[in-house]
Amino acid sequence: MAYKTLEYRDGAVSLKGFLADDGRSGPRPGVVLFPEATGVGEHVIERARRLAALGYVALAGDPYGDGEQARDLPHAIELMTAVRSDVNRWRARAQAALDALSAQSSVDRTKLAAIGYCFGGSTALELGRTGAPLSAVVSFHGGLEAPKPDDGKNIRAKVLVCHGASDPLIPPEHVSAFEAQMRNTTVDWQVCIYGGAVHSFTNPDADKLGNPAFAYNASADRRSWAAMLALFDEAFGPR
Amino acid sequence: MAYKTLEYRDGAVSLKGFLADDGRSGPRPGVVLFPEATGVGEHVIERARRLAALGYVALAGDPYGDGEQARDLPHAIELMTAVRSDVNRWRARAQAALDALSAQSSVDRTKLAAIGYCFGGSTALELGRTGAPLSAVVSFHGGLEAPKPDDGKNIRAKVLVCHGASDPLIPPEHVSAFEAQMRNTTVDWQVCIYGGAVHSFTNPDADKLGNPAFAYNASADRRSWAAMLALFDEAFGPR
Repeated sequence: MAYKTLEYRDGAVSLKGFLADDGRSGPRPGVVLFPEATGVGEHVIERARRLAALGYVALAGDPYGDGEQARDLPHAIELMTAVRSDVNRWRARAQAALDALSAQSSVDRTKLAAIGYCFGGSTALELGRTGAPLSAVVSFHGGLEAPKPDDGKNIRAKVLVCHGASDPLIPPEHVSAFEAQMRNTTVDWQVCIYGGAVHSFTNPDADKLGNPAFAYNASADRRSWAAMLALFDEAFGPR
Repeated sequence: MAYKTLEYRDGAVSLKGFLADDGRSGPRPGVVLFPEATGVGEHVIERARRLAALGYVALAGDPYGDGEQARDLPHAIELMTAVRSDVNRWRARAQAALDALSAQSSVDRTKLAAIGYCFGGSTALELGRTGAPLSAVVSFHGGLEAPKPDDGKNIRAKVLVCHGASDPLIPPEHVSAFEAQMRNTTVDWQVCIYGGAVHSFTNPDADKLGNPAFAYNASADRRSWAAMLALFDEAFGPR
């Protein structure tokens, strides 16, 4: 199993992602993972390792530059807002990660997926909206507001949105609006709503924030991970 | 593999269900299936056979008496309305099927589930709302309006609602209202919404109705069936 920091660029910005590849032979599906607003840290790295253990080539993409991680929640929001406030910058940052993944010799460029958590879930969807050649996009507790909602029609990927039913950061109206957008497309999409789950339900460290809006939910984590793997099997064929 | 018509009663009403059991030894989880409003016919029988082939004891319950099947859609609505218009009658009809299943010597009475299609999905949920000792309830394109919504708190089962995103018979407001009811409980629940799917998305014969509100959707059928089996594995332990 090989893990390494992968340096790549988005124009003038130097990015540091985390690449996980179990080194088995032959080109394999590649998955780019976009982290929570805190940046590339333990949570997304653990998910990349898991995917690599299953045979995927996984890159946790750096949204900020130099692998920066937020000090705290206000800092995370500041970093996230700086990227997200310009949709072209946001998309370019995501595309840079996908390009860096695609450039790996171990990756089958016809089998690419983007997934993400919170801000990263929104990022995976936003990358999909550019028409990027993705077979699957999965958002876990990601924001569902789109700067250019009509661009949903550009999505080529099968889309899975995994949402916590009691997530106070993503109210039911946002979920309904997203569904309404998707209904106006021919995209293959699903939304799975997990009762009792709030924001960051996949992150075992969420409880440490001491904020009831954020909490780990083992059942929603397990179910959403399984739903993602099932979608990958559909999108890529059996492993 | 043993299939047979199972006669049982709900008070004065004689019912004819379809029992499927592969005959392997030892008590096994039991699943009661409630059919579409057309009654116990090919669709629900095929699902019962599938479940039996996986080792479950499966009973397709008769909602109407003497195994009556609807001649056409208006007749189906008439039959359904006659049962559903009295919540106590409706619940008793469902309970009778569960009791008939539980009485089978091959059934592990600590491992029971109720599933259903359209009206049958509503019926499975309604049985759950009585506080019946069910480990899992799954509704496929079932109506989500409840005569006594507060009874949602009585549900002891893990609940999975599989919904077609473009189902004109079950508008988004019904889904939202159901989710809001469930949020007020401690029930373990999930709603999965399948883009592009309309009513009867699990029924290959739905297209024959020639009504665009009803159509088979192979992808939503496969995904929802897999989600149900995953829930059974959670509820009953590995097969």
